[in-house]
Amino acid sequence: MTEPNQFLDNGSVSSPKGFKAGAAYAGIKTYAKDKWDVGILLSETACVTAGMYTTNKFVSPSVTLTKNRVDAGNVRGLFVSSGIANTGVGEQGLIDAIESIDIAAGHVDIPAEEMVIGTTGVIGVELPMALIRAGIPNIKLTDDGGISFARSIMTTDRVPKSIGLGVKIGGKVITIGGCAKGSGMIHPNMATMLAYVTTDAAVEHDFLNSVLHDVVDDTFNMVTIDGDMSTNDTVMVFANGMAGNKPIASGTPEATTFFQALFSVMEYLSKELVRDAEGSSKIFSVRVEGAKSREEARLAARAIASSSLVKSAIHGNDPNWGRVIAAAGYSGADIDVSKVRFDINNVVIMDEGTPIAFHREAVIAIMNNPEVALTVNLGLGDGTATAWGCELTEAYVEFNSAYTT
Amino acid sequence: MTEPNQFLDNGSVSSPKGFKAGAAYAGIKTYAKDKWDVGILLSETACVTAGMYTTNKFVSPSVTLTKNRVDAGNVRGLFVSSGIANTGVGEQGLIDAIESIDIAAGHVDIPAEEMVIGTTGVIGVELPMALIRAGIPNIKLTDDGGISFARSIMTTDRVPKSIGLGVKIGGKVITIGGCAKGSGMIHPNMATMLAYVTTDAAVEHDFLNSVLHDVVDDTFNMVTIDGDMSTNDTVMVFANGMAGNKPIASGTPEATTFFQALFSVMEYLSKELVRDAEGSSKIFSVRVEGAKSREEARLAARAIASSSLVKSAIHGNDPNWGRVIAAAGYSGADIDVSKVRFDINNVVIMDEGTPIAFHREAVIAIMNNPEVALTVNLGLGDGTATAWGCELTEAYVEFNSAYTT
Repeated sequence: MTEPNQFLDNGSVSSPKGFKAGAAYAGIKTYAKDKWDVGILLSETACVTAGMYTTNKFVSPSVTLTKNRVDAGNVRGLFVSSGIANTGVGEQGLIDAIESIDIAAGHVDIPAEEMVIGTTGVIGVELPMALIRAGIPNIKLTDDGGISFARSIMTTDRVPKSIGLGVKIGGKVITIGGCAKGSGMIHPNMATMLAYVTTDAAVEHDFLNSVLHDVVDDTFNMVTIDGDMSTNDTVMVFANGMAGNKPIASGTPEATTFFQALFSVMEYLSKELVRDAEGSSKIFSVRVEGAKSREEARLAARAIASSSLVKSAIHGNDPNWGRVIAAAGYSGADIDVSKVRFDINNVVIMDEGTPIAFHREAVIAIMNNPEVALTVNLGLGDGTATAWGCELTEAYVEFNSAYTT
Repeated sequence: MTEPNQFLDNGSVSSPKGFKAGAAYAGIKTYAKDKWDVGILLSETACVTAGMYTTNKFVSPSVTLTKNRVDAGNVRGLFVSSGIANTGVGEQGLIDAIESIDIAAGHVDIPAEEMVIGTTGVIGVELPMALIRAGIPNIKLTDDGGISFARSIMTTDRVPKSIGLGVKIGGKVITIGGCAKGSGMIHPNMATMLAYVTTDAAVEHDFLNSVLHDVVDDTFNMVTIDGDMSTNDTVMVFANGMAGNKPIASGTPEATTFFQALFSVMEYLSKELVRDAEGSSKIFSVRVEGAKSREEARLAARAIASSSLVKSAIHGNDPNWGRVIAAAGYSGADIDVSKVRFDINNVVIMDEGTPIAFHREAVIAIMNNPEVALTVNLGLGDGTATAWGCELTEAYVEFNSAYTT
C-alpha cells in the first residue's frame, strides 16, 4: 500500500525544502490583469533536473538554451519572463536569453551555467532588455514566493495554477510543488504551455527522466485545447534531495509512490490548464477502455477530446454519440463498431454499436455540469487511456480572431 | 499545348452524353430548406467507374456496399438519399441499403447489381423505408436533371454545388459533370462529403482509378473544414465512353488533358465545399513552396489550413504569421525557420524567419476579401502543395453546439 498524498494549503514551487521564489513587474506585460512578468525560482543546493520540450521546429532559443543546460546537468535556478515569447526574432533571441540569465544568476549569486530560462508571450517581438535589466533586481526570493512566481508566468490565464503536496517516502516526508500556465493558444500569438515542478526528494537522474516522461504522457500530453503546439512548451522538474531520503530509483516501492505523487501534481495542473482555456467554462474527460493497446487507447482518447465537433457538442450539452464514435473511427485505433459501448457520466448512450434508449433530459442535465465524463469501451482488449478537453465556445473564436496588435 | 476547358452554363452530372438524372421529395429531410431528398443518376450505357471512400472505421454500410459493387465493375446507376446517413444502426443498415437500391434499380429498369448508393444525414437513425418506397417512383430522369440531383444530396448546405465543362480530347469534345455536398460537419450528426463526377469520355479503367486518386489527393483531400472525417465520405467517377474518343490511357497527351479537366471540376467543387461550410463566408488557400518533398509540402499546407488559430486569424483579418509558421513547425515537415518566407496575397510578411515591416492596414484590407491567399516558402527544396481552409467563426460553434434533436 502506498502513502496517501497530502495536499498543502497555498502549495507552490517554493513549498519543498530549500526552494525559494519571487517575482516582480518589469513592464513587459502591459496587457495582462496580473502584472508580475519576471520571476526567479532557486534551490539553495544542487538539483537533479529533467525536462521535456516542444517538438515544434519553430522553437524559441529560450527552449534550446534551457534544454542544453539541463542536458549538461548542474542546473538549480530558473528565470522566467512573460509577455514576449522570444521566438521568431532571429539571432537576437539567443543573445537576449543568455543576457537575461546572466543578470538573473548574478542577482541571486549563482553561476550563470546553473540557471535556465522560460519565456512566453507574443512571437516576433524582441525582449525589451532595458526593462528586464531594470526589473530583475526587484525580484525578492522568499519561502512563500512560489505563488508570485506562478503569477509571473501567466499571459492571459485567468487564474494562477499552483499546487503543493506532501507524501511519505522511505520514512521521510517529501514535498512536491508545481505551477503551470496556459496551454490554450490563449491570446493572439500567445502560445505556450509552461509547467515547473520542484521537489525536495532525492531522485536518481535516470529515474527522474523516465518518470517525467511517463507522467507527462498521461497528463499534459493528454490535454488538448486547440491542437496547436507552441514554440515554447516546456515541462521541467527540479529535485534537490533536501528531504534526506535515499535517492529514489526505478523499480522500487518508493518509485511507485513518487510516480503517484508526481502524477497527482501534474494531473491537477493539466486539468487546471484545460479549465482555464480561453472562453471555456466546462471541461470533459474522455476515458477509452478496451482498446487493443494502450497506444491505441491514447489515439482514440485524444482524437475524441480534440474533435471540434465533440467540443461543440459538450458546449451545447448534446449527447452526440455519433461524433464521439466517428472521431474514434478516424483516430487510427482499431474499432469494431458492433462492440462499442459509450456512456456519459455512467449513463449508457450506445451499446454494441447502436444507440440505446436513454433519458435525454437527464443526460442533458448531467452535461450541464462543469465537468463531464465520457467513457468509450471498444471491447477489443485491455488498452485504456484518459484525455481531457474543454468545450469549444463562441468566446474562443472571438478571443482568437482579434487583431494581433 | 493542351486544350482549354470550356465551362458550361448550368453544367451538372447530366451534362455528359448519355447521362440522365432526377430527384424527388420523399419526406426524409424534414429540416432542410431544400426538400429534394432522393435522387437517381443513370448512364444509358455501361460505365467504367472508380471510387474513393472514407477510411473511418465507423463506416456506413451504404459505403461498403457501393465499394464492393464498384470493385466488381458494371455499375452505371446511383441512388442517393439525404437526411439520414444510414450509419450506426446495426445490421439494418445493409438491409435498407440493398432494398433502396433494388427499388431504385427497378424504377429505372436496370439490374440491381448495376446500381450503387449514397446516403448522408443523421447518424444512428434508421432509414424510413416506407417513405423511400413511396418516394422513389416520383423520380423522373431527364437530360437536365443533374441540377435537381445536386439538390437531392444536400443536407444543410446553403447552395447546391454543380459544374460541367467541355474539353477537346483526341479530336472529340468530351464533357465532365460533377456535384458535391458539404464536407463541413454541417449540422449535428450530419457528417458527409459526397462528390459524384460523370463523363462521356472513354477512359481505361486503370487510368481512371489512378487519375481519380491523383486529383482527389490535390483537391478534396486538401480541403479542410474542421478536421473531422465522416462515416460516409465518397467520391466517384462514372465514365460511359459515349463521346466516342479512343479510350484514354496513362502516359498519353490525352491523359494529361483529361487530368487537367478533372482537376478543374474537382478543384471547383472542393473550393465550393469550403466556401459553403457552416458559418463561413471567407476561404483561404495555403500554398507551401520550397518544401523538401511534395509530401512535406502537403503536410505543412494541411496543418496550416487546419489550425483553429490560423482559421480564427483569417476570420479576424489578422496577418498572424506566428500562428502560420508555428503550424508548419508542428506539421512534420522539415523547417529551418531562418529560411522561411511568408506572404499574404503577395505582400511579404516574414522573410528569412523574421517579420519584416509591412503596411498593416493594407494587409488587413486585403484579408477582408472573401478569398485570402497565404504562401509559405520553406526554402529547402522543390516540394509544393496547396490546401484550402475556411475561417472559424462564432457561427460555426453556434451551429455545432445545438442539440441533436
